[in-house]
Amino acid sequence: MSMTYASLPIDMNEFDRLLETFNAIGAHPEGGITRLAASDTDGQARDALARWLKEEGAEVRIDAIGNMYGIFRLAADRDRDVPLIMSGSHLDSQTNAGKLDGTYGVLAACIAARALVKARDEGMRFSSDFCVVNWTNEEGARFRPSVLGSTAFVDNSIIEDALNISDDNGIRLSDALERIGYRGTDQPPSLPATYIEIHIEQGSVLEESGHDIGIVVNNWGAAKYDLSFNGEQAHTGPCPMEKRRDALLAAAHTITGVRDLASAPATQGATLHTSVGRLNVFPNSSNVVPSRTDLSIELRSADITIVQTAADALDALVLRAAEAANVDVTIHQKSLRKPRKLPGGPAMIIEQAAHTVGASSLRMDTISGHDAISLLGHTDVGLLFVPSIGGVSHNPNEHTELADLQRGVHVLTETLKTLCTTAQQGETP
Amino acid sequence: MSMTYASLPIDMNEFDRLLETFNAIGAHPEGGITRLAASDTDGQARDALARWLKEEGAEVRIDAIGNMYGIFRLAADRDRDVPLIMSGSHLDSQTNAGKLDGTYGVLAACIAARALVKARDEGMRFSSDFCVVNWTNEEGARFRPSVLGSTAFVDNSIIEDALNISDDNGIRLSDALERIGYRGTDQPPSLPATYIEIHIEQGSVLEESGHDIGIVVNNWGAAKYDLSFNGEQAHTGPCPMEKRRDALLAAAHTITGVRDLASAPATQGATLHTSVGRLNVFPNSSNVVPSRTDLSIELRSADITIVQTAADALDALVLRAAEAANVDVTIHQKSLRKPRKLPGGPAMIIEQAAHTVGASSLRMDTISGHDAISLLGHTDVGLLFVPSIGGVSHNPNEHTELADLQRGVHVLTETLKTLCTTAQQGETP
Repeated sequence: MSMTYASLPIDMNEFDRLLETFNAIGAHPEGGITRLAASDTDGQARDALARWLKEEGAEVRIDAIGNMYGIFRLAADRDRDVPLIMSGSHLDSQTNAGKLDGTYGVLAACIAARALVKARDEGMRFSSDFCVVNWTNEEGARFRPSVLGSTAFVDNSIIEDALNISDDNGIRLSDALERIGYRGTDQPPSLPATYIEIHIEQGSVLEESGHDIGIVVNNWGAAKYDLSFNGEQAHTGPCPMEKRRDALLAAAHTITGVRDLASAPATQGATLHTSVGRLNVFPNSSNVVPSRTDLSIELRSADITIVQTAADALDALVLRAAEAANVDVTIHQKSLRKPRKLPGGPAMIIEQAAHTVGASSLRMDTISGHDAISLLGHTDVGLLFVPSIGGVSHNPNEHTELADLQRGVHVLTETLKTLCTTAQQGETP
Repeated sequence: MSMTYASLPIDMNEFDRLLETFNAIGAHPEGGITRLAASDTDGQARDALARWLKEEGAEVRIDAIGNMYGIFRLAADRDRDVPLIMSGSHLDSQTNAGKLDGTYGVLAACIAARALVKARDEGMRFSSDFCVVNWTNEEGARFRPSVLGSTAFVDNSIIEDALNISDDNGIRLSDALERIGYRGTDQPPSLPATYIEIHIEQGSVLEESGHDIGIVVNNWGAAKYDLSFNGEQAHTGPCPMEKRRDALLAAAHTITGVRDLASAPATQGATLHTSVGRLNVFPNSSNVVPSRTDLSIELRSADITIVQTAADALDALVLRAAEAANVDVTIHQKSLRKPRKLPGGPAMIIEQAAHTVGASSLRMDTISGHDAISLLGHTDVGLLFVPSIGGVSHNPNEHTELADLQRGVHVLTETLKTLCTTAQQGETP
C-alpha cells in the first residue's frame, strides 16, 4: 500500500532513536524487557522521559502517585483558560514482557508533541496546550489493581489507599516511588478536553483483517478476584490424608474450574475469557502441606450477562473447592467492570486522521484494559491500535513492524493536530 | 506413671536452658521458628551450638558441606583405633515451623555428651569416643533434596553437586554456607560404629497408643518428583482460549490428580500419602497466562509396590495434564526411595534403655525421612521417637510435653552409655 502523509512533517528518525533508547532499559539479553512499576528500571525509563521532555521545552510535573506530565504551551492566546489535549500511555511492563506495550504510546505522543511544537514555531495557531503523560502502574503486575495512576487522576480520593498497596514482597507503592524519586508533589494538570491513547492491539484482529489502524469503540467487561485459601501446615509424610487441610489443593480445583467456565454450555454463542495468572503458595516447601494460597482470577466478556453469570458460578466454585480441601476461603477483592462504549467524537476524528494519512481503519473492541478506559465518562476519550504480529502480547516475542508503528505515529499526530487546533474553551465535560 | 532413672545422672536444667536458647533463634513473635538451611538464623543456631560444644571440651569440626561435629574423647586407651558413636539431628527448619523438629535431637545428644563426659571424669571406662552432629539441610525446604548433609557424609562423591544446588532465588548452597561461615575445610570424623538419632514422632501413633518411646524398625518408601510445565506467556485478555498454553492449568490438573491417586481403587487396603507442597509460577502476574510452573510432588507408602504403581500413574497423569493445557513437561528429578528396615541391634539396645529408665516403648514405622535413614546400610543405625501432640508437624503448633522430651533424653543417654562402653574396635561395617 502506498502511504500519503499529508499531515504535519514528523521527525521519524527521532522516533526510531527514542524506540532504541527505551528498548534498552530493562532489556533481557535474550529479548524482552522487565520494567515493573516503580522498580529501578522503571525509574531509568522515567528519567529518560523526563530528560527528553525538558530538552523539548516541556514543563514536567510528577504528581502524588508518580504520574508524569510533560506540558507544552501551544496556544498563543493566554488571556483565557486554555484547554488541554492529552496523550500518552505507560512505561511500566510485565515481567519478561514485550518492548512496545505502553512504551509505544508514550513515545508516539512525544513525537507528536515535537511536531506540534515545530508547527507552532512555524506559525500554526493552536487553541489548546498539549500534554504527554506516563501513567503509573498500568500493568498491575507488581501492584494490583492495574491502571492505578490513570484511575487516581480522575478520582484523587483513592490516592492514599493506592499508595498503601503492597507488592508480593510487602513493599508499598509509596516507598517504591520514593526510592526511585517519583513520589511527586506537583499538582497534576486539569482534566483534558480530550485524551487520546495509541497502543499495540495485543490481539490479531487487525492482522487478520488486513487493516492498518483499529479504532476502539467498545471495551470488554471484566470481573477480577483476589482471594486466599487458608488451610493448615502439616508434614506431607506422616499427616494422614483425611486430616489434611491443603490450601494448594483448593487452588488447583479452582484453577481447573475457572478454565471450565470458559467452555461451559451457558456461555455458548458468546465468548468468555477466563484465567488464573497469579498464585502464591505458603510456605512452599516440597514436604509441607500448604497452609495458604493467594490467587488472582479474571473473567472477561463483551457481554455483561456472561461476566455476571460466570462470576456467580465462580463464587459457588470457590466454595466447593474450599470444602473439597477442608480449608477456608477469604475473598479480598472482587471488582466488576462493566463493558463500556467509547464516545463517537474522538473516534470520528481518528478515522478522519487515518484517511488523511492514507491508512485503512477498522472499528473494533478492546479486550485488554488501558489507561484510556480509566478516563471514560470523565472526559472525551479516543483509543487507537496498530497491529500486533500474531496477537502475541505480555510476551518477549510481542512485535509490530516498524512501518506500522510509524504509520500509527502519523495518525496520532494528525488526530492531535485536529484536536489542538479546534479545542474550544470550556469544552471539558 | 512413675519414672525410674537408673541411668547416668543428667543435668536436666542444662537441657531446659539449651531448649530455651535455641527456641529463641529465628523465633516468630506469634510462635514457631524459621531457620532455613544456611540462612542467617541457621548461622546463629550453629554459632550457639559450636560455642556450647567448645565450652564442654569438644573438638569442633565443620566439613565441606557444613555438617558440624563435636567430638568428645571418652576412651582412655588411645593406643589403638578408637571406635566412634555418633548422635544428633539438624538445626535447620521449615518456614514457620515448630521448634523441636531436628533441634531436639541435637540438644538431646549434647546433654547425653555432657553426662558421658562427667561419667568419664568420675572414672567410667569407655571403649569409644562420642560425637554430636548437626547435619546440613535436613529439611529440604530451601535446597532440594532433603537430608543432604547426612547423604554427603556417607557418599562424598555428591558433595560438589550438592554445593551447586540453588535455592528458589538462585543462591547456591556453597555461597549460602560461605556467607554464614560454615563452608568448612575440616575432615569429617570416620564412619561411626553406631549412629543414634532421637526425634519427635511427627505423627500420633505414640500418643494414641499411650507409649513413651517409639523405636523405628521400618522406613516408608517414597517417590519424589521435581518437574516443570512450559507453556507460553500471553495476555489474559485478548488471547483466545484455544490459543493459550497455560502452564498453571497443567499444574492444577496435576495437583488434583495427585490427590486422587491417594484414594484410587488400586491402593485400597494399603496407605498411600501424596502431596504437592511446592509450586512456583512464572511470571506470576494476574493478567499474564503463566509460561512456566515448577512443582515438587511426593508419593509415600510402606509398600514399594504401591509407590511404584502410583509413580507409574503419576507419569501418565503428568503427560495428560500437559496435553490438556497444550504445554510441555520436563521432569528434572525423579527419585525412588525403597522402604527400608532398620537393623535389629540398635533397636534392642534402645528397647533395653527404655526399660532401664522405666519408659514404655513401641516398635513402629517412620513415614517422614530422617538423617538416620541416610546412614542405613553404611553403619548400624538406631532411630527413636518421643510423642508429638496431635501428630502436628511442620507447623508452629508442633509440641511435645517437657516431661516426654526429658524422658527421651534419658533413654538416649542410656542407649549411648551402653554403646560407648561396649563398642569394639573394628566393629564398623
